[in-house]
Amino acid sequence: MSTVSASESPVTVVGLGLMGHALAAAFVAKGHPTTVWNRSAGKADDLVAAGATLADSVQAAVEASPLVVVCVSDYDAVHALLDPVGPALAGRTLVNLTTASSSQARDTAEWAAKLDATYLDGAILALPQGIGTDEATLLYAGPKAAFEEHQATLAVLGEAATVYLDEDHGLSALYDMAVLTIMWGVLNSFLHAAALLGTANVKATTFAGMAATAINVTADYVAAYAPQIDAGEYPATDATVNVHVGGMQHLLEESKALGVNAELPRFFLELAGRAVAGGHAEDSYAALIKQFRAPSA
Amino acid sequence: MSTVSASESPVTVVGLGLMGHALAAAFVAKGHPTTVWNRSAGKADDLVAAGATLADSVQAAVEASPLVVVCVSDYDAVHALLDPVGPALAGRTLVNLTTASSSQARDTAEWAAKLDATYLDGAILALPQGIGTDEATLLYAGPKAAFEEHQATLAVLGEAATVYLDEDHGLSALYDMAVLTIMWGVLNSFLHAAALLGTANVKATTFAGMAATAINVTADYVAAYAPQIDAGEYPATDATVNVHVGGMQHLLEESKALGVNAELPRFFLELAGRAVAGGHAEDSYAALIKQFRAPSA
Ligand SMILES: NC(=O)c1ccc[n+]([C@@H]2O[C@H](COP(=O)([O-])OP(=O)(O)OC[C@H]3O[C@@H](n4cnc5c(N)ncnc54)[C@H](OP(=O)(O)O)[C@@H]3O)[C@@H](O)[C@H]2O)c1
Ligand SMILES: NC(=O)c1ccc[n+]([C@@H]2O[C@H](COP(=O)([O-])OP(=O)(O)OC[C@H]3O[C@@H](n4cnc5c(N)ncnc54)[C@H](OP(=O)(O)O)[C@@H]3O)[C@@H](O)[C@H]2O)c1
Repeated sequence: MSTVSASESPVTVVGLGLMGHALAAAFVAKGHPTTVWNRSAGKADDLVAAGATLADSVQAAVEASPLVVVCVSDYDAVHALLDPVGPALAGRTLVNLTTASSSQARDTAEWAAKLDATYLDGAILALPQGIGTDEATLLYAGPKAAFEEHQATLAVLGEAATVYLDEDHGLSALYDMAVLTIMWGVLNSFLHAAALLGTANVKATTFAGMAATAINVTADYVAAYAPQIDAGEYPATDATVNVHVGGMQHLLEESKALGVNAELPRFFLELAGRAVAGGHAEDSYAALIKQFRAPSA
Repeated sequence: MSTVSASESPVTVVGLGLMGHALAAAFVAKGHPTTVWNRSAGKADDLVAAGATLADSVQAAVEASPLVVVCVSDYDAVHALLDPVGPALAGRTLVNLTTASSSQARDTAEWAAKLDATYLDGAILALPQGIGTDEATLLYAGPKAAFEEHQATLAVLGEAATVYLDEDHGLSALYDMAVLTIMWGVLNSFLHAAALLGTANVKATTFAGMAATAINVTADYVAAYAPQIDAGEYPATDATVNVHVGGMQHLLEESKALGVNAELPRFFLELAGRAVAGGHAEDSYAALIKQFRAPSA
């Protein structure tokens, strides 16, 4: 059982699902006077045992602290909980760590402004078990002054990084999506690679080291392409799109010949082919940014 | 002008395109007596000025060294050049660094065996300007004894790593494809991320650091998933496929709402959806290996 010290700022956590529970536990562990509330009973029991206070209504939970953190399934749940107690939010800072789209975040900021609440939208780049450790990064968007006021408290949640992004409330959601698409892109291509090598009985564990090297080497390309993307000019100091297309054709043929899933190379080729058709055959791979900026069917 | 020293092993390089030229230049720079040949004249001029010997026929080039490296556009070109001089390869080691599929590599190994030539198939994970530096990794497959005999010479080309993979001649090609699919997977998802953030005027250079972190963090997941893939069991110690599906739906909606290309999230969702349909909703993402092992339409 941790000791709750009056020297740390009080905080309320609404929503004690897997993630909300982890958030509340991290605040309690660091000695913040923590008030909690959850729709279903029982999820606060161990938190209360550790020193948290269970509020008997959402209204009471909100009124207990100047900083209110909400983390529930989605924004419909956020509004179902908080719309009825809107006036209680006036003068407080609401930090919404529920996953959202950028437009949901911006809409919720407008809603909060009407209630005279200060609003920060956040995104959690971590699993619940990573909260409060150096494996958690949390991103925040909204008024910088509000972030700075509560930074010390929020930093409890993500020891890897607690990042302030921008005044635009949509940016934590957008960065969240950006990081997730990278994660799935890396994982899928690793699985495709493992499937290819599996046809020759190469174990995934045998390949894992080289895969990690390949992933990390590509991270360096990203750094090189970013300024080209911003400048809108794509000089091929390394391989041209045409050279990539040649390799992609090999990858497609190999995938088909070995009977593994060929959707990824087919997609690669289609995109690169469009870039060639758009006049970028002799440019660097960064020229494909145009394909990603264009809406697809 | 480098000095060609008799203490280094002699080597022949056939094909002086962008890559073959870089290979020959690296051998010359390290003092290997280097004989070169190219179909079109003129590409050897600077190499000869640096100390290489220009052979006046493919036959003479092959006969000049016990180790013959070939690097041309494709395997048709390899055979167009070497079939006519087949008998001259007897007793020599042929190292083929032309990009190939695994079956082309295996077929060429059979062809070389009939000629009593020792055959190594290789793959170059580098750009021409990386050859001979610590940015080049080269992979080799074929008889281990032949690799070891010539390892010191071959190591000149790739200071990052000169890797012997397996007796199976197809493996350098297969590893090459595996590394390339990872590279394109990472690059495409970074470009998708940059396009998403671009809608809020976030520069690619602003995001690049966090993108690199996301890429490198995902490299750690790969290490965790590899043993699950080999074991054929996918316990979700982190997020379940179902949780991923939820995030992917957000990504798809966000991509559509912001008018950027939505093909990547659509593909992610389709694959993950198939894994759910296959009974893997509560497994880790590694369970998607089954989707990649299955042939696609
Ligand atoms: N888990 C992760 O790995 C992870 C990682 C990053 C971000 N997130 C985000 O964190 C948020 C919460 O995720 P989670 O893992 O904690 O989900 P969870 O375990 O399913 O918990 C959902 C929470 O939302 C509450 N809730 C749902 N609908 C409600 C409603 N209509 N009214 C009141 N409360 C409602 C639930 O209350 P009851 O207990 O009464 O059902 C519960 O507290 C999500 O937006 C998720 O995307 C999660
Ligand atoms: N460049 C890279 O970044 C890179 C990276 C990794 C792997 N590779 C691989 O390295 C190999 C060579 O690539 P490269 O960049 O050097 O290509 P390149 O600059 O286009 O050169 C092609 C070479 O092949 C020769 N050639 C083509 N067809 C021939 C034929 N029918 N008969 C005789 N010679 C023929 C060309 O001779 P001429 O000079 O007479 O045309 C030239 O020497 C390819 O398999 C490529 O995939 C390249």
